[in-house]
Parts: sequence; structure tokens; C-alpha cells
Amino acid sequence: MIVITGASSGLGAALAKCYAQDNEALFLNGRNAQRLDRVAHQIQSKKPIQAHVANLSVPNEIKGLFDALPQAPKMLLHCAGSGLFGPIAEQDPNEIKQLIDNNVTACILVLQEAIKRYKNKPLTLVVVMSSAAQTAKANESTYCAVKWAVKGLISALRLELKSSPIKIIAVYPGGMNTDFWPTSGKALDTSSFMQADEVAYMLKQALISSDNGYISDISIDRG
Amino acid sequence: MIVITGASSGLGAALAKCYAQDNEALFLNGRNAQRLDRVAHQIQSKKPIQAHVANLSVPNEIKGLFDALPQAPKMLLHCAGSGLFGPIAEQDPNEIKQLIDNNVTACILVLQEAIKRYKNKPLTLVVVMSSAAQTAKANESTYCAVKWAVKGLISALRLELKSSPIKIIAVYPGGMNTDFWPTSGKALDTSSFMQADEVAYMLKQALISSDNGYISDISIDRG
Amino acid sequence: MIVITGASSGLGAALAKCYAQDNEALFLNGRNAQRLDRVAHQIQSKKPIQAHVANLSVPNEIKGLFDALPQAPKMLLHCAGSGLFGPIAEQDPNEIKQLIDNNVTACILVLQEAIKRYKNKPLTLVVVMSSAAQTAKANESTYCAVKWAVKGLISALRLELKSSPIKIIAVYPGGMNTDFWPTSGKALDTSSFMQADEVAYMLKQALISSDNGYISDISIDRG
Amino acid sequence: MIVITGASSGLGAALAKCYAQDNEALFLNGRNAQRLDRVAHQIQSKKPIQAHVANLSVPNEIKGLFDALPQAPKMLLHCAGSGLFGPIAEQDPNEIKQLIDNNVTACILVLQEAIKRYKNKPLTLVVVMSSAAQTAKANESTYCAVKWAVKGLISALRLELKSSPIKIIAVYPGGMNTDFWPTSGKALDTSSFMQADEVAYMLKQALISSDNGYISDISIDRG
Repeated sequence: MIVITGASSGLGAALAKCYAQDNEALFLNGRNAQRLDRVAHQIQSKKPIQAHVANLSVPNEIKGLFDALPQAPKMLLHCAGSGLFGPIAEQDPNEIKQLIDNNVTACILVLQEAIKRYKNKPLTLVVVMSSAAQTAKANESTYCAVKWAVKGLISALRLELKSSPIKIIAVYPGGMNTDFWPTSGKALDTSSFMQADEVAYMLKQALISSDNGYISDISIDRG
Repeated sequence: MIVITGASSGLGAALAKCYAQDNEALFLNGRNAQRLDRVAHQIQSKKPIQAHVANLSVPNEIKGLFDALPQAPKMLLHCAGSGLFGPIAEQDPNEIKQLIDNNVTACILVLQEAIKRYKNKPLTLVVVMSSAAQTAKANESTYCAVKWAVKGLISALRLELKSSPIKIIAVYPGGMNTDFWPTSGKALDTSSFMQADEVAYMLKQALISSDNGYISDISIDRG
Repeated sequence: MIVITGASSGLGAALAKCYAQDNEALFLNGRNAQRLDRVAHQIQSKKPIQAHVANLSVPNEIKGLFDALPQAPKMLLHCAGSGLFGPIAEQDPNEIKQLIDNNVTACILVLQEAIKRYKNKPLTLVVVMSSAAQTAKANESTYCAVKWAVKGLISALRLELKSSPIKIIAVYPGGMNTDFWPTSGKALDTSSFMQADEVAYMLKQALISSDNGYISDISIDRG
Repeated sequence: MIVITGASSGLGAALAKCYAQDNEALFLNGRNAQRLDRVAHQIQSKKPIQAHVANLSVPNEIKGLFDALPQAPKMLLHCAGSGLFGPIAEQDPNEIKQLIDNNVTACILVLQEAIKRYKNKPLTLVVVMSSAAQTAKANESTYCAVKWAVKGLISALRLELKSSPIKIIAVYPGGMNTDFWPTSGKALDTSSFMQADEVAYMLKQALISSDNGYISDISIDRG
């Protein structure tokens, strides 16, 4: 079974469709029940598709999510996150706190709970960040902050988990043509950006392992 | 005038003493009124030393702090922060949230308010991080996360502020022999670590600018 | 047509076999004629397999190689390189110079010639480095130096080539069980390392592009 | 005694003047005898100033240089280096090889010889790179390559030398108004760049150590 967070839109939803085509059992998480249900119902699969609403910055809701899993997943794709852009002086402090909750707090708490429960299992944790985790950009200061946080978290966890069968895979996609932009306050013509479906397809293809190795870091760029 | 956050202990307190010896007017911030007052009273100076208690993860308290400044500061030394260590599975979610508030939220909001108010002034913003912002370490996953966040923030803000006279200086100190360790849950023999006074002295010496340049990034290591 | 440098052994040879199975026309380069021929003859393909010996740190030999190409390639996989390990004080200066020639000079000159000739063509340049390009390791100082050089080169070239259809893909494989180790002076039990065939297979799968994007950076780790 | 490489011009010459004012005994190295002598004669000092011509990419000349030292130095400032700029397609392969020799080979061989001879001495090795070692820039691809190489070398050597009293200090200066630019083929108005004297002064001030620590990394930027 594969768990996908942030599955109610964007890359998370596209990955859900992609993996359903392979007839994988899916456990989808999102914050918005209506949108999550819509995604779950669009998916055609011979295997069960479960949807579970949870706010991932609330520890109890994360526990609820993991308690609801029918079995230990083989992969968890953490796609949940949100954006916030523009000059720092113009950003609303409450929106900044929301950005931190959605991207830093949620990711730490999700990985923590997965590691607590499955430390001795061959679980693959795929963490979707952004090219902004690798390259600083003007007018993306707070977004860079939350994405670099996740990169630092993963870098340290890989050292901590050296003797665990858990693998952490870091994914850095460039800009996609999704709802992400209008909801994060950046007016952009994103028509030449990558489609979420394209990125989902490339990512699924690149998530490869062999007997003695695996692809651990993947950047996906426009161009 | 120089503003120092996190001045009630550790490197912030040591920097306050250091700059007072140069007879700089100081504006000290801390979360704990009693400890902040004790530091303020220990300092000998011919110039005014003001102490202002504020929780830097609360937007209104940050506004209060900046409103209380008698003039535009020439330098702001952001030393406030806290630690949290150990395997991620053993960390308390509420302490993780506190760690994020103290290190990510506070730093973003302090820099935001300074930039809002002084964008056209030759203000020097000195942001004290940690060697953990540069090197990932096992059992420091959440601490690395919050410190990498600050590094990402600064990297992007430098691009955003290219045409502003504000300078941002990044400081990466290694382990010091301070209260930081006992309060962050890491039992360590820190007797061979750097003393806060040593680091404060080196940092003050290294914060140099000339007509056409300045020292922008400073790492201070044990050894 | 696909050009593969360093095709006479290791990952280069394994990639040659991999792409031959897809019936791609191949143009293989190596320094050692005998070993390169052996690889070329082992490969089964319906398409032409050409072998061309050249020392890639000699500008004229690189020109010769590109002059010999029957057409503009769609992809160039630069796998050529060598290793050198151990405490720096014990390394032979002539072997260090060889290491620099094989890894820095050769890579710069190959990319330079490709860019000179095909700047306006949709060429994909795949540059195979090492996990040592990302993480410093004790007793790998000179090897890290030459691999970080290539990473710096690529990072700058991507900016320079922003308006060119050329794509540069960075590949960072971890340790493989190949001839690389015995020839680079490091006595290691590499039996649990990745096989070159495994890495070649994963890399080929991950070299994906879509209408609006492509996978630009790929790390492949043991585990 | 302090050894300074690349002392015949630019930052190396400026550092020589700076340290002479502190009455430090100096041992200056350069490639050009005439220019090196001119610098040595301009310097006023009560302590001996020796000048030694050597090409640092030639192992025997490096041995000659270290053999000529009258005693173990306390500090070695490695300033030698050269630049090469412009689109990669327009660079001359022989000039690229010169660039690699001057910056990668020379630095490796100098550090190697110093470590061979003084592994158990409290020697401070100061390696001057460039801001191009930290940030990739278009049309500086080969220059970035050689500077990133040095950064990788230092990062690995620090791990290798953990139990040695040798310290390696990394210095990243931004653009200076020196002969460097005209000789590296980049036509620039550098009148607002930092003067070598300014950078030398700031660097000397920042090269601070205390009982338990030292400043290990220093970036110096324009602005």
C-alpha cells in the first residue's frame, strides 16, 4: 500500500492517479474533504482507494492517520505543502505561520510518526520539496526557508537512520501548472510550466531501486 | 545603537558585554525578564542600556519591540534561538513546535519587521545560526531543519535586498559551553567547548566593513 | 545516436550494453583500445556500434572524436573518469595530476567541444560524477576536489546555457563494484556495492523527459 | 613566520604589506621574480622579508620552496591563483589547462606538502578562493570549476585532519579591483570593487583564534 499526503490536488493527486493505474492500493490524505473525495472518486483502480482527511500540523490528526492505515505501507509520498511569495515586507505574519505549519511542522511530524512506527520496516519515504530548496530566489524568502528546512531535516535523518531499512528519497520539482500558484499569491503565466501529470509520471519512473541501490535524490526541471 | 535579541544568556549576553565595553548604546531583548535584567545590570557602560522583554514568535510583541527603539539601530544581532536534540522518534511534538517558533518563526518575523521599517537605511542584520546550518548531523534532525531554514531565508533575502543598503551577515558558530545544552535535552561534557565570551569577542572582531566591502559570512569552530 | 565516454569499463560499459538493448546507435569512447573493442564486441545490437579511442585530456583527440561522429548525437553520456584515494600526504603528485586530467580537464574539454558544436541542438549532456561530489569524505580529498570541480562547472554552464536547447543532467552514483577501486589504490570489500549493471539500468530508467520538463539531477545510493 | 603565496600582486601583495606592519617575518612566493622583488622591496619591516620564486604546479619547485623555509611557519596564506572568464565555447583549451594548473593543481600540491611536513604542528593554512566557489555564475564556468575543486579539497581535508593541530581556513572574497581582471580576459569597470588593501585588512582582522576556537570560514563581499 502507498500513502500519499497532499493528494487532494496538484502533484499529490496526479501521483494518486499514476499509481492507481499500476493497481496499487492507495491511502490518500488531504486537508479538504470535498476535494479529496473528488480525487478519490476520479481514480479507477482494482485495488482499494481510501481517503483520510487530516491536518498534518496537528499531532493527534497524524496519529489518527497512521492508526487508520490497514497495514504498514511500502511507500509514503509526502506531497502536502503550500506556497507564499512576494517581498517579505508584504507578507502577512499569519500567512507566514501557516506556511511554516504546512511545510515544516507537517513534514517533521509526518516523518517522525512514520519513523516511530516503522523504523525496522523497508519503508520508502518520498519527500517532495521544490527547486526552491536548492536555489535561493528573490521574493521567495519564506518559501525558501521552509523548503531548506525540509532539506536539512532529511540530510540529518539519513545519518540517523543509517542502520534502519527506511529509505528517504528527496524530490525537487520545478514550477508546475497547478492550483499552487493562485493560492499562494503569485500571479504568473504558468501555461509553459510542467503539468502535474508529467511530473508525476517522471517521478514514478525515477523511483527505482535494485538489489543493492536506489535513486535517492531527484530534481525535475522545466525545459 | 545596537539591538541584541536573545541577550538574556549565552552568546547574546556575551555580545552585550562585549559591545558595552566599546560604549555602544544597547537595546537588549530576551524572553525572561528576570534573566534579561540580570544581564543588563551586570553591564558597565557610559551609554544607555535598555532591556525589553518580548516573545519573538508573536507578531505584536515584535512590533512592540521595534516601536520601543529610540532610534533606527545601526546593527541588529539576532541571537535568539533554542535547541532540541536526540533521535526524532523521542522528541515531543510540542517541543518541536516550540523549536520551530523560536528559531524559524521568530527569525522570519524579526527580519521582516526590520526590513519593513529600515529598508532604506544602512542597517546591518547579523543572524546567528549554528554549524548545524551547514552540516547535517545524526540526532540533530529537527535542529538542522530550523537552522537550514534560516540559511535559506537569508540566501533569498540577500537577493531580494540587492538594491537596499541593508546588509545581512550570516554567523555559524560551533558548540559553546552555555545553558543552551542543558535546556535542549542533550547531556554533553561541554567543558572543552568554546566559551560564549570567546565567541563574542571573535565575532565582534570579525564584523568588519570597509569603504567598498564587508565580511558577510563567518563560521566559528572549535579547535 | 548516443555517445558514451569511459565506455571501456564500469558504468560506461554497462550503459553501452543497456542502450544497445534498446537498439540505439552507439558511439563508444575509451582510452584503452583493447578493452574498448572487447566491450564493443560483447554488445548485441541491430544498430551500428562504433568505438573510438581518445584521451579526453588532449584537445586534438577530443576534436578527432567529435569529427568522427556520423551525425549530431541526441545524448552524450560522459562516464570517463578515474579515482585516487588515501591520505593526501601519501598520494603521488604525478597521480594527482593524472586524476585532475582525467576528471577535470577531460570533462571541461568534452563539454566545451559539445557546446561549441551543438549549441543550438536539443542535445542531452549527462555527466556522471560521484556521491563524493556532494559529500566530503576523509581520505578522498583530491577525489572530492575533482568531483566538486565538475559540479561547479555544471552549475555555471546551466546558467550560461539558459537560452540553449542543450540540457545538462548531473548524476551522482555511490560506490559500485567495478575495476574503479583496484585501479585507484583503495583496498575495499566492494561485494555489497552496487553492480554497474544495476546502476546503468536505474540511470537509464531515470533519464526521462516530458513535453515541458526533464529529470535534471539524479543521485543513486547504496542501500 | 608567515608564508604568502601569490604575493607578487593583488591580495597576496596587500596581505604581505599588512602583516609586515605587524612586524611579522615573511616568506613571499610568486611566479614572476621581478614583480615579487618589487613587492618585497616596497615593504617596510623590522623582521626579515624573504622572496622565493616558484611555479606551484611543479612538485619539485614546491619542495624547493618548503626546503627554503628557515623554520616551520605559523601560518601559510595561499593566495596564488588566476582567472579565466567568458562563454566556455570561446575559451582556449591551453588557457583552461593553465587555469586548472594555477588553481587546482597548485593548491593541492601546496597543501599536500604543508601537511606532509607539518602534520603535527599548529599550522594555520589559509586558502583564498573566491565568491565563485560558493555561487555559480554564467560565463564563469571553468573558474567556478577550479574554485569549487578547492572547496571540495578543503572540506575533505578538514575531516582527514581532525586529529591534527593543523587548521584550514577558507576565505571567499568577492570581486577586487586588481590586475586579476585584465589578465583573465574580462573587461569590467572594477572601480567600485573592493581594493586589495581593504580586503587584506579585513581578512587579517578576521583571522582570529581564541583558546578553544577560531574563525574557520570568511566571506568578504562587495557592498
